[in-house]
Amino acid sequence: MRDVVIGIDIGGTFTKYGIIDINGHCIKENFTSTDKYSDFDIYLENLHTEIEESVSSINESIEIKGIGIGAPNGNYYTGTIQDAPNLNWKGTIPFVEKIKTYYPGIPVVLNNDANAAALGEMIYGGAKGMKDFIVITLGTGLGSGIVVNGDIVYGHDGFAGELGHINVKHRGRECGCGKLGCLETYVSATGLKRTVFKLLAERITESELRNYSFEDLTSIMVSEAAKKGDEIAIEAFELTGRILGIKLADAVACTSPEAIFLFGGLVKAGNILIEPTKKHMEENLFPIYRGKIKLLISDLHETNAAVLGASALAWKELQK
Amino acid sequence: MRDVVIGIDIGGTFTKYGIIDINGHCIKENFTSTDKYSDFDIYLENLHTEIEESVSSINESIEIKGIGIGAPNGNYYTGTIQDAPNLNWKGTIPFVEKIKTYYPGIPVVLNNDANAAALGEMIYGGAKGMKDFIVITLGTGLGSGIVVNGDIVYGHDGFAGELGHINVKHRGRECGCGKLGCLETYVSATGLKRTVFKLLAERITESELRNYSFEDLTSIMVSEAAKKGDEIAIEAFELTGRILGIKLADAVACTSPEAIFLFGGLVKAGNILIEPTKKHMEENLFPIYRGKIKLLISDLHETNAAVLGASALAWKELQK
Repeated sequence: MRDVVIGIDIGGTFTKYGIIDINGHCIKENFTSTDKYSDFDIYLENLHTEIEESVSSINESIEIKGIGIGAPNGNYYTGTIQDAPNLNWKGTIPFVEKIKTYYPGIPVVLNNDANAAALGEMIYGGAKGMKDFIVITLGTGLGSGIVVNGDIVYGHDGFAGELGHINVKHRGRECGCGKLGCLETYVSATGLKRTVFKLLAERITESELRNYSFEDLTSIMVSEAAKKGDEIAIEAFELTGRILGIKLADAVACTSPEAIFLFGGLVKAGNILIEPTKKHMEENLFPIYRGKIKLLISDLHETNAAVLGASALAWKELQK
Repeated sequence: MRDVVIGIDIGGTFTKYGIIDINGHCIKENFTSTDKYSDFDIYLENLHTEIEESVSSINESIEIKGIGIGAPNGNYYTGTIQDAPNLNWKGTIPFVEKIKTYYPGIPVVLNNDANAAALGEMIYGGAKGMKDFIVITLGTGLGSGIVVNGDIVYGHDGFAGELGHINVKHRGRECGCGKLGCLETYVSATGLKRTVFKLLAERITESELRNYSFEDLTSIMVSEAAKKGDEIAIEAFELTGRILGIKLADAVACTSPEAIFLFGGLVKAGNILIEPTKKHMEENLFPIYRGKIKLLISDLHETNAAVLGASALAWKELQK
């Protein structure tokens, strides 16, 4: 009999889940739709059915000890998802309470997705043994999980760690959250695209990126163009790294971490993003921190890292 | 026999100390010079002599259980003061090790001054019972003490909580730390003076502040002028509050505190500073935090708050 937990990562398009043992070995992994379901109860019933099918397809004897969930705007304290901009279900969704009706007696814990990534990094990734670090997730938006003294920082209301919404520019770019000038409008896959479009407007430089619509352009295309020497693409990454570096220096002044881990689709761009980020972070650090903060790329494979992180959440809860 | 601790607050000009019981009652308080001593060992010998004189002048039987020290760039982990810009002693001063030679066997703990203020607020002030809050000290510079889950955030190296050195403006004002555009160059007693001088240069508005040199002008003069309706003074406070409000909103996105306490000389200006700060903080908060974060003026009397904070540090250590 092997003890396992179920890790669930809720994204705007897909919900990924895995059945994972204490060593982070994923016995079974699958996904289902999120955005197909406008009704949360029907979504959850389907998710439960799919998980049960996965469980029954496993050839060995397992015991489900807990469930961990990572979700945008997920609140650890209340077990709810609150006003998540990229999900169909508005208002406050009592996710933990509802899923417990399917799994009575099993500990269930929910967290925001970036906090889950931070726990994944701590338990299975490069942050093993670290007590103070930050994980920045660079996808459609920018998420952050902050660890202080070995614990996720939840703050008074359970919503700490929203570095994607710190201010870059007074009256800057419109953000989905309703504010102007938030970090994620500059530093994220979408932010990079916006920067490319700004540069295409300002410059007369030739660029292959002039051939794509905003809808069609992806951060991978920008990164490939940059590798081929496209000046607009290179400048877009340079600007993105500069803003990220400056803001990471500010985050260091808050919690003085041992390391900052970058995670997510945009990080695949590699050095073209990391080098300007590191340079501008170092330049903007309060002198006492200089040369001390490791800027690292996450060890975890992106495909299942979010699920691993969610499972880490469950294992950590079981250790309490 | 009453148990007491000695609280010591090291400032650039004076070192204040007090003999304080568990209820925060200051039995005896005094101060001595800091900047008169270029040699640290002679400074410490004098400080010890003065403390002993104070102790022997007390008419009741006391027992010294611990010593707490707040100092600029004080490091809790190492017990040292490292490269403090406003102190005569350069490099790394092993303060705890040295003072222990005078007080063998007594627990001694050192912290940076803003962290000491945060502990003072938690044990004797308005943060009693709070687990997540931030204290901002507004004096010559801007210091910060961040509390998460009931503990000061020290970070990996003991130097967390330097919000005075987060970036306000790319290539902004020169800071004593060697960087450009740090928050304390805009938001502090000195920052306010710099803003007044900038406005005097830009505007042709009449102002009584045109009669003072930079050396002579104090933040109290600016605050008095503002109360009399001086437009330059009012605008200077409005700008100071705007920058502070925006940056407090960023700090909230890191640790999501229940309250932010403002402390120090500049806070005496009252609503002329607090109102724009609150307004711009609220406007810049990620929506999920809005209306939740209390912006409060410290309960502690400034005269002995730093000494109280240092003593709180010692009492908290003794509880461990």
